[in-house]
Amino acid sequence: MRIALGIEYDGSAFNGWQRQSHAPSVQAALEQALSKVADHPVSVVCAGRTDTGVHATAQVVHFDTHAGRSMRSWLLGGNSNLPPEVAITWVRPISEDFHARFRATARQYRYLILNRGHRPALLRKRVCWEHRPLDVEAMQAAARPLLGEHDFSAFRALACQARHPVRTLHRLELQRRGDLILLDIEANAFLHHMVRNIAGSLIAVGRGEQPVDWLAGLLAGRDRSRSGITAPAGGLYFVKVAYPSEFALPGEAVLPDIG
Amino acid sequence: MRIALGIEYDGSAFNGWQRQSHAPSVQAALEQALSKVADHPVSVVCAGRTDTGVHATAQVVHFDTHAGRSMRSWLLGGNSNLPPEVAITWVRPISEDFHARFRATARQYRYLILNRGHRPALLRKRVCWEHRPLDVEAMQAAARPLLGEHDFSAFRALACQARHPVRTLHRLELQRRGDLILLDIEANAFLHHMVRNIAGSLIAVGRGEQPVDWLAGLLAGRDRSRSGITAPAGGLYFVKVAYPSEFALPGEAVLPDIG
Repeated sequence: MRIALGIEYDGSAFNGWQRQSHAPSVQAALEQALSKVADHPVSVVCAGRTDTGVHATAQVVHFDTHAGRSMRSWLLGGNSNLPPEVAITWVRPISEDFHARFRATARQYRYLILNRGHRPALLRKRVCWEHRPLDVEAMQAAARPLLGEHDFSAFRALACQARHPVRTLHRLELQRRGDLILLDIEANAFLHHMVRNIAGSLIAVGRGEQPVDWLAGLLAGRDRSRSGITAPAGGLYFVKVAYPSEFALPGEAVLPDIG
Repeated sequence: MRIALGIEYDGSAFNGWQRQSHAPSVQAALEQALSKVADHPVSVVCAGRTDTGVHATAQVVHFDTHAGRSMRSWLLGGNSNLPPEVAITWVRPISEDFHARFRATARQYRYLILNRGHRPALLRKRVCWEHRPLDVEAMQAAARPLLGEHDFSAFRALACQARHPVRTLHRLELQRRGDLILLDIEANAFLHHMVRNIAGSLIAVGRGEQPVDWLAGLLAGRDRSRSGITAPAGGLYFVKVAYPSEFALPGEAVLPDIG
């Protein structure tokens, strides 16, 4: 049978999602924990692979098993075998035509920028720290031309393995909450480093180093070498995956408001 | 001259505030960093010593120096010499009659309880996790009799070195924000483990294991052995110290809302 589950993880503890031979990965930790519960080797597929240092509040995963376990056993047994930096948040039996990656219709990320003069201690590795004051209105205006279907080559990592660079951006919203700036971005799918490259270019606009129409020009130019730096991984959270409603899976999860 | 400063720290990286010979402490980290900037040995005094694992967003410290440095040099030089888990948030010159501990008129802590079925990964060591549903209204009603001036022996650690057990509680408020319960508590001063012992007893009421009038009875009984467990250190944040207005120091600092 096929099972879907949601996981939360602290990306600073792992060299990204993908299994590697000599470095800790979320995939290896999860496969090891689920294999213990199943008592047979388990392979998992995720909705979106995340890089080293990138966090998730609502990554979605599926796996196949012939082990007869209750959903409660997968949840409790999985969590007791996982390291403290990963937790399973829900588990559901699901039909064989579900696929965590290929059936996903949209993904949502949140990028956090701490905009204050002194560096964070409690939120280190959890936010991108920018000590120069950022103009959020200018950043929002600069982001607007990215909405819709475009060739996002300007914001694509060299190492990106996607077949083509066209993606549809459904949402890109910025808001300030005190010292913190939240960037919420949703698309059908993302290219490698796309969120962090967009965030890095928006920060350059926010600092006043580039004009508000800069990102529109970058997008049209399709040249990665002209756009801003890749913003740090620690500010990035994978917060939602959407699937067709027939699968009836739980939705978005944001971090609890600890302010 | 005397200098006052504010610091933020992640308590999970230290064996508490106080300098020890064989374990990392916030005090030792700060004294080492400031001594490098001063180019002479610096001793610091804090407003409230915190235990292993307890965090601070707004601990206040003072020290004396004969080094002629700008406030900006203390801030930038201090932060570049501190480990990533501690940060100086502000620095001010202050009169010789200021004392971080003895001139403080009130202290405020926040205690965070994550109340959901599955354990936290991103907020591990930052919250107390309680998987059974808590009744916040019952907890608030149970807390009310603690307000005002009382002998708090029932919530005092055996190791407490305070001269007497009488403290004045100005505020004890609970609020729920989704899965998170925030406990805000303010007093003229606190006994050792007092916040965590009160939190542990309130959690017992919230679970329905003890009646709403339980804390009133514990308080009157003055017997530590009858009250609830000491709630875990990771949920506790030192968020504010109040001083006479003549010193004009910055106030409370809460964590940015990353929800």
